[in-house]
Amino acid sequence: MSNPYRKDFPLLNQKQREKPLIYLDNAATTQKPEAVIKAVEDYYSEYNANPYRGLYDISEKATKEYEEARKVTAEFINAEEPAEIIFTRNATESLNLIAYSFGRSILKEGDEILIPISEHHSNLLPWQLLAKEKKAVLNYLYLDDNGHIKEDEIEAKITKNTRIVALAYVSNVLGTIYPVKKIIKKAHSVGAFTVLDCAQSIPHFPLDVSELDTDFAVFSGHKMLGPMGIGVLYGKRQLLEEMPPFLTGGEMIDFVSEQDATFAPLPQKFEAGTPNVGGAIGLMAAINYIKDVGYDKIQKAEEELSVYALDKLRELPYVTIYGEKSYSESRSGVISFNVSDVHPHDVSSLLDADGVCIRAGHHCAQPLMRYMQAAATCRISFYFYNTKEDVNAFIESLKKVRRWLGLGD
Amino acid sequence: MSNPYRKDFPLLNQKQREKPLIYLDNAATTQKPEAVIKAVEDYYSEYNANPYRGLYDISEKATKEYEEARKVTAEFINAEEPAEIIFTRNATESLNLIAYSFGRSILKEGDEILIPISEHHSNLLPWQLLAKEKKAVLNYLYLDDNGHIKEDEIEAKITKNTRIVALAYVSNVLGTIYPVKKIIKKAHSVGAFTVLDCAQSIPHFPLDVSELDTDFAVFSGHKMLGPMGIGVLYGKRQLLEEMPPFLTGGEMIDFVSEQDATFAPLPQKFEAGTPNVGGAIGLMAAINYIKDVGYDKIQKAEEELSVYALDKLRELPYVTIYGEKSYSESRSGVISFNVSDVHPHDVSSLLDADGVCIRAGHHCAQPLMRYMQAAATCRISFYFYNTKEDVNAFIESLKKVRRWLGLGD
Repeated sequence: MSNPYRKDFPLLNQKQREKPLIYLDNAATTQKPEAVIKAVEDYYSEYNANPYRGLYDISEKATKEYEEARKVTAEFINAEEPAEIIFTRNATESLNLIAYSFGRSILKEGDEILIPISEHHSNLLPWQLLAKEKKAVLNYLYLDDNGHIKEDEIEAKITKNTRIVALAYVSNVLGTIYPVKKIIKKAHSVGAFTVLDCAQSIPHFPLDVSELDTDFAVFSGHKMLGPMGIGVLYGKRQLLEEMPPFLTGGEMIDFVSEQDATFAPLPQKFEAGTPNVGGAIGLMAAINYIKDVGYDKIQKAEEELSVYALDKLRELPYVTIYGEKSYSESRSGVISFNVSDVHPHDVSSLLDADGVCIRAGHHCAQPLMRYMQAAATCRISFYFYNTKEDVNAFIESLKKVRRWLGLGD
Repeated sequence: MSNPYRKDFPLLNQKQREKPLIYLDNAATTQKPEAVIKAVEDYYSEYNANPYRGLYDISEKATKEYEEARKVTAEFINAEEPAEIIFTRNATESLNLIAYSFGRSILKEGDEILIPISEHHSNLLPWQLLAKEKKAVLNYLYLDDNGHIKEDEIEAKITKNTRIVALAYVSNVLGTIYPVKKIIKKAHSVGAFTVLDCAQSIPHFPLDVSELDTDFAVFSGHKMLGPMGIGVLYGKRQLLEEMPPFLTGGEMIDFVSEQDATFAPLPQKFEAGTPNVGGAIGLMAAINYIKDVGYDKIQKAEEELSVYALDKLRELPYVTIYGEKSYSESRSGVISFNVSDVHPHDVSSLLDADGVCIRAGHHCAQPLMRYMQAAATCRISFYFYNTKEDVNAFIESLKKVRRWLGLGD
């Protein structure tokens, strides 16, 4: 395997059931390079301390590195300033924070929230519950057969009643890259606010919040080489300042009396309690690793893998691919498919016997499954450390599935 | 130093400013044994995967270990079953979850929430905001000069109007161990529910939620040798089942349609999004380490340190100790004090020059500070890995403070 990055990932160099581990579930979580694992280990071994209030050396270093992680993250997504970066647990918490704090304070009865039918439950349920509470309307953007949101759907659904448009940059099921810049512009033209779920995009291509002009953006560390338990909420300063706090507790206050409180300035206002300093430092190491590799190389590697895998899959007559069947510029390295007459769970379990890790199920997108009239799908998802050998092993194992079950080719 | 545990803690074996590091800020966060650091490293190097839905080997192992962490935690606090353990980010998030989900659904106008005046902001602000939203009343239990809640205060304040009594097992400022069993019993006798913040108790002595019969209990992993970014909410099954979900998203649902959803059974109902698997595994390693040492040894070590330090501090005429001045059974190893005519921040900074890490400030308990008529205090807090040499170094450095500032002994 000529991929120069694999050596940095301890987990990819181990065997599963005495075969090489073929990890094709990167949309669920990515593996971690040694640099990330070591950054976390060094933190706990050398300067672990509760940040901010400790007037001693290791606490000051913990504070400095935690704030450096914020600065690195802000620069990485081209935010105007570090204070617009709020560290959360994951993208899910970031989305809930926006719904609870921003959504609850701006929505009125009859207002509309608009999301694509393909959204992950994390960008659907917070809006569904908010809509019920506020007697607002949750509307959907529907997809065409290729998994795209058509221009006229955007024009028809974003109206003067729309208050919030929330969508993924990339579908976690179909891999479709949505025309978010166009949607954000249209949303702003009617006075609506935008929430961009970048969990499936930022591992793979750049996010520029200033150029996109989105009001909010969220992502998770663990899907971009970082540790679990750390996520990001980006918000425009003015909105974050106007929003009430969400979680309350230590470090997010200015002044507390028995019956009243005033809150700290950004970003502390939204970071109650002891932060996950180790997680933020791990995320910073992950961002630095991605920068070292370079998005250009990441995109090129994933394009090659996607083209190759889609070509191979289309050759199998019993395989149905969902969304775009061929690689294009509006498609990322997430591929959903089914094998005729075989339940996706069985496909996944049979592939596991060959050490091939893929995902099967509804991918936390049940409304999309119903819309596509599929109970579940199989899903593979690439990262730059995958190789053509991984694809070959996957395809060879997949070819055996129907034979194993006595169904013929 | 004869303490047999220090060798397990990499950070305690390094030097600060070329002197041994004297870490006396354990109430803020504890240091981590190699076993915890390694458990996290092993997870990311060997079986990192998104749990639950992956039908392949490493995902199944990640799921198994994550659920094992829940089981170990449940047994550790004598919960009836693992499903009563919800993994959160930290104690602060656990308390907010209870306030948002349980509090919002049971409180009516005029109902009373009762907390001691000594509560950490994390067990104060969520109730203050909830009381405002629900037009409920936030009442306080006041302390006597020794930092105790008197029997008649408990009798007078817990009435038929009381719906929620929320309190720390141990004060993070004064180290007072509150009579929580008595308070819980009294609360239940009037039909109120109880929330116990165990962040400052569980590192030091056992928590038995069944024996205490508390409705809820919370704590943070990082204050008990575990990583940051992982916390625990314990709740009685019936209450957790009746409560609406808090954060929504992936993994916490049963069925989702465009306009409706049903939620997963406990504990998933309260764990939206990718969980912090590495954090939970680190917490499990921390619990196992505490069990290996044994609470009896931990308590004995901390008692010796507290007796020794309090004796030494009382000898210094310019030192004021807050709360109980001598060690007793209702006191833990947290000691707040001030040095006459010197701001606590200056005390802390001057001690830092000798490599002695203590905390100075309001300790996220501003109402208590005002009640005690102190703007801020210095605080030292022990863990079993501290030694008498640590106390000696602290006292020697403290003795220099007033001399440095030209104030005399």
